[in-house]
Amino acid sequence: MNQHQKGEGGYRPFDVDSVKGYLASNPAVAERLGGGAEAMQAREVGDGNLNLVFIIEGPKGSVVVKQALPYVRLVGDSWPLPLKRAFFEWNALTRQAAILPDRVPSLYHFDETNALVVMEYLSPHIILRKELIAGKRFEHLAEHAGTFLAETLFRTSDLHMDTAQKKADVALFADNVALCAITENLVFTEPYFDAELNRWTTPELDGPALALRGDRAVKIAAQEMLHLFTAKTEALLHGDLHTGSIMVTETDSRVIDPEFAFYGPMGFDIGALLANLFLAYFSQDGHGQQPGARDEYGEWLLETTEKVWRVFAARFSKLWTEERTGILFPRSMFEDQGDHVGAAVALERFLDGVFTDTTGFAGAKMIRRLVGLAHVEDMESIEDPATRAGCEARALQMGCELLVNRGRFSDISALTNLARAIRRERTQP
Amino acid sequence: MNQHQKGEGGYRPFDVDSVKGYLASNPAVAERLGGGAEAMQAREVGDGNLNLVFIIEGPKGSVVVKQALPYVRLVGDSWPLPLKRAFFEWNALTRQAAILPDRVPSLYHFDETNALVVMEYLSPHIILRKELIAGKRFEHLAEHAGTFLAETLFRTSDLHMDTAQKKADVALFADNVALCAITENLVFTEPYFDAELNRWTTPELDGPALALRGDRAVKIAAQEMLHLFTAKTEALLHGDLHTGSIMVTETDSRVIDPEFAFYGPMGFDIGALLANLFLAYFSQDGHGQQPGARDEYGEWLLETTEKVWRVFAARFSKLWTEERTGILFPRSMFEDQGDHVGAAVALERFLDGVFTDTTGFAGAKMIRRLVGLAHVEDMESIEDPATRAGCEARALQMGCELLVNRGRFSDISALTNLARAIRRERTQP
Repeated sequence: MNQHQKGEGGYRPFDVDSVKGYLASNPAVAERLGGGAEAMQAREVGDGNLNLVFIIEGPKGSVVVKQALPYVRLVGDSWPLPLKRAFFEWNALTRQAAILPDRVPSLYHFDETNALVVMEYLSPHIILRKELIAGKRFEHLAEHAGTFLAETLFRTSDLHMDTAQKKADVALFADNVALCAITENLVFTEPYFDAELNRWTTPELDGPALALRGDRAVKIAAQEMLHLFTAKTEALLHGDLHTGSIMVTETDSRVIDPEFAFYGPMGFDIGALLANLFLAYFSQDGHGQQPGARDEYGEWLLETTEKVWRVFAARFSKLWTEERTGILFPRSMFEDQGDHVGAAVALERFLDGVFTDTTGFAGAKMIRRLVGLAHVEDMESIEDPATRAGCEARALQMGCELLVNRGRFSDISALTNLARAIRRERTQP
Repeated sequence: MNQHQKGEGGYRPFDVDSVKGYLASNPAVAERLGGGAEAMQAREVGDGNLNLVFIIEGPKGSVVVKQALPYVRLVGDSWPLPLKRAFFEWNALTRQAAILPDRVPSLYHFDETNALVVMEYLSPHIILRKELIAGKRFEHLAEHAGTFLAETLFRTSDLHMDTAQKKADVALFADNVALCAITENLVFTEPYFDAELNRWTTPELDGPALALRGDRAVKIAAQEMLHLFTAKTEALLHGDLHTGSIMVTETDSRVIDPEFAFYGPMGFDIGALLANLFLAYFSQDGHGQQPGARDEYGEWLLETTEKVWRVFAARFSKLWTEERTGILFPRSMFEDQGDHVGAAVALERFLDGVFTDTTGFAGAKMIRRLVGLAHVEDMESIEDPATRAGCEARALQMGCELLVNRGRFSDISALTNLARAIRRERTQP
């Protein structure tokens, strides 16, 4: 038992036995499970890098317990990480649930001392990333994701929220320093210099990976996006909205794991999802049994990517028209003076700004998954290094183009056309 | 004695008698004054809208006591305002003093309960605005102001400050809700609709004042600047840096009254000062005894305006090169790889962004002083309404051009040239 496990102000990490007794002592949760500890089955399934995740099933029902560890699970004691991230996750989850309860897990209990959340066990839901690797399609995904983005981002911004409440939330989440620092370092900075934790498919990807450090336009753009990340407190973000943070069935989608939540630029969440869909697209050439086998699926991925943005923009526009009750662009200055056109022009300009940010963040998030510390299974699961490096090199080019040329793309189809063009140019002789 | 004066958690507003006893009971302050209450002379000189200001002189020295009132002094009990603004003022003053002690008053004592700060009595300093109306020149002003801006803005940003400390300060000042709301409403919103408190030189200025409400480009630009004001937590701002917040002598300049302090865009502070220098410039045609009498002085004002920006940019560039220790644009990505050119290009782009924000905020701040609630003495002191309205109409045009065309001006001399052109075109037949 190490220092952390001995407890930190009453904190103790659970195991598959102790978690049962813990839940049995909570009447509401025990009632949901339908029995005492002896009637529960528990397993630990945390495959992420940071936390313990238990699934507990009882005679009547099931729950998930997600418990923070005081260090990065992947690395161990040498990389401590505050338990308070469970507090930020809970605060983000409750706000998301108030906005769109169908798109997040149901919430049952928060225990700040033990840094844990008890919530719905999503079943038969599967992590979206795994399904994309398997080549499965989800017809409702874009609708669900675009709506989640529009609703959570609009309603936590000064376009809708009471500004005193928003400022209080900016302050509350500003304390999520440690998790923001992970993003600040790993996404925007370390990929662009000789940082110890960087890794990539070597030697096949050495050329483009090392070239990044000398690419002035890319480096400056990455830091300009960091400036937005650290100083644009526009909306409450999920903060880590990749395809591993969405669980899906054929008809349902749920967003999980908002422990990186903080007030930041809307484009960061949207860009994160787009980046991971583009990474999935470029990984397809490594997944088919024969060349071209995944072409149609790749097209579905690009169509889905486009649709995520279009659904976001349409829902955001509807909210702009109907729910613009915050201090920004007040109706007193526009509609109340009969100036509906002014409100519409302002909306277009606002969405243009979000699209520019989205494009830049998508680029930065792609790059870091290819040459930084944390990679994506979409690429990692491609066994042949030459094939993998080919997919990665194309994705890396896409990331750089998005980053440097953000603000110069006309609309979302310009991004998907760019993806197609890069793949065509670099896969055909 | 009204409800507020009876005390609010121990708070009591002082008068010229009670403030002496209060200071006498503080050994360090009493020592500075050199005697007990009976040896002190006190007068109340608050000519602002919000606070009590006492000057207390003793046998050995003197101090100023600035005490917040729980309402807007100008309006009375009907407009309550949190006493906590004294806390924000103190926190801003101490941070500014740590950066540039020569440019702020020396600080002696803070009493949170009584919402008061005891500080240096600046003498023979005069409020800059009054001196500009009187036509006096200050050869060190631009150097002092530009340096103050560069030092305070750079050192409280993620370019220099430890990011955890910066995030803690963002959270601390995010609670300055009431004073931010004053700016949000009075600067960016109310001038553009039929708000009760708006006023202007009527009927002479009715045309351009009412036209603002139908000027779509101006309205949208004003709200886009509000978006930055409320969601660009770039640096700790003074928050109200007009020429009434600077006290000067021939050789000294001090910045006072940072009770509006919060984390916002750098360009807001710079733009506020530029706006007030431009307002002073356009008011000159109302101050001379005969036409043209103030032409040379007007040129001095424009030269000073240019110099404020140039000093700011030069000092900011020096700090960028020598003191860039924050998370943004880290040396590991640039200089440490031999890429000094990259660091220089990034600096130019960063300053371009600050200049664009500065231009837009200068425009918004000019407009609100002409058609909103709070006006400037530079214009108000022009007795003839037609002359005053002429000066104001030219200033209003300048404000609109700056706001709408922010980002399209090549450099600071483009702004001063615009001011000259507007004055020439609209004062000559």
